[in-house]
Amino acid sequence: MKIYGDIKSGNCYKIKLTCDLLSLPYDWIHVDIMAGDTKTPEYLAKNAAGKIPLLELDDGRFLSESNAIINFLAHNTSLLPSDPYALAQVQQWQFFEQYSHEPFIAVARFINKYLGMPEERKAEYEKLQAGGHKALRLMESQLGKTQYLAGDKLTTADISLYAYTHVSDEGGFDLASNPNIQAWLKRVEAHPNYSAMS
Amino acid sequence: MKIYGDIKSGNCYKIKLTCDLLSLPYDWIHVDIMAGDTKTPEYLAKNAAGKIPLLELDDGRFLSESNAIINFLAHNTSLLPSDPYALAQVQQWQFFEQYSHEPFIAVARFINKYLGMPEERKAEYEKLQAGGHKALRLMESQLGKTQYLAGDKLTTADISLYAYTHVSDEGGFDLASNPNIQAWLKRVEAHPNYSAMS
Ligand SMILES: N[C@@H](CCC(=O)N[C@@H](CS)C(=O)NCC(=O)O)C(=O)O
Ligand SMILES: N[C@@H](CCC(=O)N[C@@H](CS)C(=O)NCC(=O)O)C(=O)O
Repeated sequence: MKIYGDIKSGNCYKIKLTCDLLSLPYDWIHVDIMAGDTKTPEYLAKNAAGKIPLLELDDGRFLSESNAIINFLAHNTSLLPSDPYALAQVQQWQFFEQYSHEPFIAVARFINKYLGMPEERKAEYEKLQAGGHKALRLMESQLGKTQYLAGDKLTTADISLYAYTHVSDEGGFDLASNPNIQAWLKRVEAHPNYSAMS
Repeated sequence: MKIYGDIKSGNCYKIKLTCDLLSLPYDWIHVDIMAGDTKTPEYLAKNAAGKIPLLELDDGRFLSESNAIINFLAHNTSLLPSDPYALAQVQQWQFFEQYSHEPFIAVARFINKYLGMPEERKAEYEKLQAGGHKALRLMESQLGKTQYLAGDKLTTADISLYAYTHVSDEGGFDLASNPNIQAWLKRVEAHPNYSAMS
């Protein structure tokens, strides 16, 4: 199994963390988006969307979209419940992540950390703060009720949201007012085989 | 089972279409976001995210996020494959929809159709066109290889992407150069119990 990605990208890190938690072996193939690695004909033949992460199975089949990949890897493991409603709650949090969390928190982090906060993107960065704070508020509230996002067990929903939340300070988000999120981050990190971003 | 939504929203229509295709009975509760219906204390108690659509089960449990809801409803039906890789491909297209399709096509449609293209959002509308076209190009390419997005059967991935694609002209997208998408739209519409947006 091969994983194409950049470990500093939260979307890619989700795959690494899932594999490590499940003790699945993989080859990591570093892809540099800034150098145009995702836009070469060779890469586009693997993933027409031109994005990372990308999973390549040993039989040559591909799978893209970070959350689809981790759910595939976690199929029939403790990281995914089998009860249909519980499973739907995992997906609810993952769609929330892609629609209401990542586009604010990951993009603010990218502008600040990778682009070095260029003047022409400062207004956009400021605008992203409200959406990111709203997403964190919803997580904080849920984590006041349950130990993990989709109940009292670690699932792929936690991996999806851990990825960018634990580095949200790099996007200008201060978790000081979110004690439940802070405790949850520690809870995730205490799992056997947990591995850090880099 | 109750569905809170506005039928003119593609995200809400996904739920109606899934229920109708599966002949599942439901009560539709109209929610008007423009009138602030999603921001009342009563509604926020049901869905803290303050968004539609929202599913309420007969036992009082709730589920949000359109794609999580339709996968829940389609569990163990012909609309969702049981093979793990096939299931992951359905999710791949659904995460693509929420990240790379809806934020362009649905938002352009909203600015044009619902807000009446106000001068101050015209630049944003123009900027959304490129992302929407890219999403359509990827769909067009896949639909040249398979009858439906995740293979040769209708799945919830098609429902997720049908919702805003079939009204993408309202966001300024012309499907004339996408014959595969056009044929696919007709294929979806030919299914028994298919129901239109309104
Ligand atoms: N929805 C996708 C998002 C993937 C994504 O946006 N990847 C970024 C890096 S974090 C990328 O490849 N960007 C390059 C590009 O879009 O050209 C997922 O969850 O996998
Ligand atoms: N990711 C959500 C998006 C839902 C969404 O954005 N709903 C809109 C209507 S289409 C809404 O409720 N907007 C009101 C708001 O955000 O305040 C889903 O797929 O259900």
